[in-house]
Amino acid sequence: MSRIITLTTDFGVDSPYVAAMKGVILSINADARIVDITHAIPPQDVRQGALVLADTTKWFPPETIHVAVVDPGVGTARKIVYARIGPQHFIAPDNGLLSRLALATPPSTIITVAEGEFWLPEVSATFHGRDIMAPVAARLSLGLEASRLGPRQDELMRLDWAEARVTANRIEGSVQSIDSFGNLITDISADALADAPRGEEVAVMCDDHETRGIFNTYADQPEMTLIALLGSSGKLELAIVGESAAAMLGVPLGTPVTITW
Amino acid sequence: MSRIITLTTDFGVDSPYVAAMKGVILSINADARIVDITHAIPPQDVRQGALVLADTTKWFPPETIHVAVVDPGVGTARKIVYARIGPQHFIAPDNGLLSRLALATPPSTIITVAEGEFWLPEVSATFHGRDIMAPVAARLSLGLEASRLGPRQDELMRLDWAEARVTANRIEGSVQSIDSFGNLITDISADALADAPRGEEVAVMCDDHETRGIFNTYADQPEMTLIALLGSSGKLELAIVGESAAAMLGVPLGTPVTITW
Amino acid sequence: MSRIITLTTDFGVDSPYVAAMKGVILSINADARIVDITHAIPPQDVRQGALVLADTTKWFPPETIHVAVVDPGVGTARKIVYARIGPQHFIAPDNGLLSRLALATPPSTIITVAEGEFWLPEVSATFHGRDIMAPVAARLSLGLEASRLGPRQDELMRLDWAEARVTANRIEGSVQSIDSFGNLITDISADALADAPRGEEVAVMCDDHETRGIFNTYADQPEMTLIALLGSSGKLELAIVGESAAAMLGVPLGTPVTITW
Repeated sequence: MSRIITLTTDFGVDSPYVAAMKGVILSINADARIVDITHAIPPQDVRQGALVLADTTKWFPPETIHVAVVDPGVGTARKIVYARIGPQHFIAPDNGLLSRLALATPPSTIITVAEGEFWLPEVSATFHGRDIMAPVAARLSLGLEASRLGPRQDELMRLDWAEARVTANRIEGSVQSIDSFGNLITDISADALADAPRGEEVAVMCDDHETRGIFNTYADQPEMTLIALLGSSGKLELAIVGESAAAMLGVPLGTPVTITW
Repeated sequence: MSRIITLTTDFGVDSPYVAAMKGVILSINADARIVDITHAIPPQDVRQGALVLADTTKWFPPETIHVAVVDPGVGTARKIVYARIGPQHFIAPDNGLLSRLALATPPSTIITVAEGEFWLPEVSATFHGRDIMAPVAARLSLGLEASRLGPRQDELMRLDWAEARVTANRIEGSVQSIDSFGNLITDISADALADAPRGEEVAVMCDDHETRGIFNTYADQPEMTLIALLGSSGKLELAIVGESAAAMLGVPLGTPVTITW
Repeated sequence: MSRIITLTTDFGVDSPYVAAMKGVILSINADARIVDITHAIPPQDVRQGALVLADTTKWFPPETIHVAVVDPGVGTARKIVYARIGPQHFIAPDNGLLSRLALATPPSTIITVAEGEFWLPEVSATFHGRDIMAPVAARLSLGLEASRLGPRQDELMRLDWAEARVTANRIEGSVQSIDSFGNLITDISADALADAPRGEEVAVMCDDHETRGIFNTYADQPEMTLIALLGSSGKLELAIVGESAAAMLGVPLGTPVTITW
């Protein structure tokens, strides 16, 4: 059975730790199709991992098995969980990494990964991605029923995901992530913007930087212009045309973004 | 049908944007074999993208489908094109990204990608790689005829590719790219060098750095020596043995390289 | 025949040189399953390459074909070798890159890769990974007998792998590698530590930084604490909880690590 298994970790781009996980998966299911989502989650940054999973996994086909390892509590009492969310499967530490996905689509099944017979024979204290999550994913890809992984649990651990605040003529959000072009991605969704006008009468403030209007694409404004647009992830982005907004504005994650009209 | 689809982008190494494209491809053809060429093209640097495509795609088998996304004009009137170049297929914005390949091998077919039925149902203004190019590539990999993608067009957009100037006892070129070892790759080809001698009587100048002779491999000279050699891409390279020439000489792309004898 | 071929190089993450190797492999065996181990070996650092191969390849299934290219002597008289080590196949320059693996498991067969009929028709002087090793690996993956690659040779080139020195109440080792979290991985194995106590009575010195006790996982100590633990590679590691020990301590590879009790 050829099934897709994706990997999302904070191991660093091209870390040999990733290869160890791939080796374990292929040793159990040589036909597994492994796809890297990213290994560049900032070390131990569970929130960024949760955001990337929410934005990216939806593009994969039903029955894809997603393995996510951002695991500062590895080897402690934190659980490892299996969750069925929509038509896909997820395996991750139960530390909030799946909580952004679960906010949008409550899991239909949550199982505590507890049955050691599906793990590697020897389990280290510091690399459960390789020793527990990879073999479990490989066995699921061969048809193992998730119900055999351990007992059901009722809830995933949740992180607090503040929503952008929408009032009559004002939206307050913040910068949630920065992409590789230096574009600032906010938590202000297309829905939140539904009633906002798009023209010059709208002011978008990010820290003390202001731009007017909400555009469709980068090239709608000249080079070096600060521009607000509804980006490809369905969120309001701030960009500097042809440059890195993150580098030029120097604003960190969490910086408030306010839209008024 | 298992067909190879390659990806070349400026999204940054291990960007989740790449994973979104892979998810879209695999959702349409779960058997597509996706290979990354590189995601480290400098942001929006169409020329570097064009050079990498010209140097790398030739190593892939006939019928490979190459998708290239370096797309500063995304969402504007710039077209997306399909081109058949030699025995392979290419999908890219029509901004010059395929022009270096087309200089060596004129495309046998060029088609404007215009038929929306082969795209994702919703197309964003800022990520045509995911919403148009990935699904079109996936459908080609399933056997869709390229002629159904849209109308034929006569020409690809061209960039100006200056040739190294060859005279009786002098060749003038420049640094075109820098590899991960810091080697400086020029636009002076093996053909251009055909009449040049290889010994001490040849002087190679890069900016104000001079070296004598043209060698076969790095280890032909001692550590820390500046060396000129005919590299694996069939172009003259300047290297410092055991070190990064780019870092030690501090020369940027475009630096003139002159060979005299 | 679908066989796994792994790649380990110092070409840099996402270098187009890697893609050229993949294209060559897929041109010969379109069904080869290529897995990247890492392309982030420091340039020309054969020792680090040897360590990564020893730590990582063991996780892959029997009959995997591993290709390793860290090759400062490319184009010189250094040989390229095929080695069967345990149940797996290795192709690499004979410069010590396989010597760490061979120390643990002596190769059952070593062959000098010499028969040009299995290489690309044109072989450059500077990229034998693409022109010799990739096509040889692809042909092995199609079932070519390794014995046809060239004559047997008796020994691989060896590097000197100092062992940690173990005495009655003292172990002396050093930092061998640094992972992407900044953890310092030593050459002190679980075996070497078998007789050492684990509690407060053990002092671990790295350069002039001291910590007491040997723990199981990072979370056993509070944030910002220097901790010694037996890591997932079966070696003693030094870490700073929640931070990069390499960045905070500023210790280079080779720094002595001493355990006393």
